[in-house]
Amino acid sequence: MMRDLPLSKVYQLIEPGPVVLLTTAQKGRANVMTMSWHMMVEFEPPLIACVVSSANYSYAALRASGECVIAIPAVELAAKVVKVGNCSGREVNKFAAFGLTPLPASRVAPPLVAECFANLECRVADKALVGNYNLFILEVLKAWRDPAQKHPRTIHHHGYGTFVADGKTFKLHSKMR
Amino acid sequence: MMRDLPLSKVYQLIEPGPVVLLTTAQKGRANVMTMSWHMMVEFEPPLIACVVSSANYSYAALRASGECVIAIPAVELAAKVVKVGNCSGREVNKFAAFGLTPLPASRVAPPLVAECFANLECRVADKALVGNYNLFILEVLKAWRDPAQKHPRTIHHHGYGTFVADGKTFKLHSKMR
Repeated sequence: MMRDLPLSKVYQLIEPGPVVLLTTAQKGRANVMTMSWHMMVEFEPPLIACVVSSANYSYAALRASGECVIAIPAVELAAKVVKVGNCSGREVNKFAAFGLTPLPASRVAPPLVAECFANLECRVADKALVGNYNLFILEVLKAWRDPAQKHPRTIHHHGYGTFVADGKTFKLHSKMR
Repeated sequence: MMRDLPLSKVYQLIEPGPVVLLTTAQKGRANVMTMSWHMMVEFEPPLIACVVSSANYSYAALRASGECVIAIPAVELAAKVVKVGNCSGREVNKFAAFGLTPLPASRVAPPLVAECFANLECRVADKALVGNYNLFILEVLKAWRDPAQKHPRTIHHHGYGTFVADGKTFKLHSKMR
């Protein structure tokens, strides 16, 4: 279902700013949250910065385990993505509650999300700004892409449940990678 | 032309991951670059993290002056945005070359970009990760929005000059800010 994606292409998924899911695991129990505050930091090996609030249940698992998976949903999953964001793993087993399928990852304990078109297995590479800003630097160890989802349109959060889906694709001659 | 935007709304511009312009000033000369690696870090006062490579001409100005403006272009400016990204301020006065209009900012020396629908005046708030990752933490001091651009569609970079413009907007009941 999921195929290898070269690490050199990971930035093409994160740079456009999609809403993503973040999975963690602690004491054998997996959890998933919704996240929009992330960016690329380095192409290869891919480094991603993200902010996970210490108010989130996922924060303790991410900090303690040093592992997570970033799973990228297409617009068809938007309703589930918002439900994931509206509750806490303290009270809800979100995979079961919202019909999301955890798949074993290859390099980390947190699961992939089968319904997402891409999954990035990550380890925490730098905690220097965790104390001041809840800002984690992640290294992507392994990336997966679902070839069955050929042209996924991602979603972008504008605040308070207003989302914009990807529209038209266009090319311009760019020297930028 | 530009109206005040409350600082509490700045995250709604950055969180969706648009391609932006970054202006800097050094020795009285303004420059502008194209940037896609940025994210929100805090709502208010708004903190934004961004990566400006030390290979970019803007890096030295940003590091030395501690000031910049993040200007957000709509899709109609895409061709200019790419041209800005394809050359260096070392060789080109990009404002003149590409017909972009610098406007005086109120709190910082780098200019606003008149053609952009939003402009964020920023100062560097934390350089702790500049050495290792070229990662700057910016505080937004003042934000502006052009009320004449009512429904701007932003652009998102997928690598090598492939861009996706904003498509449909939709609302879902979210408890997330």
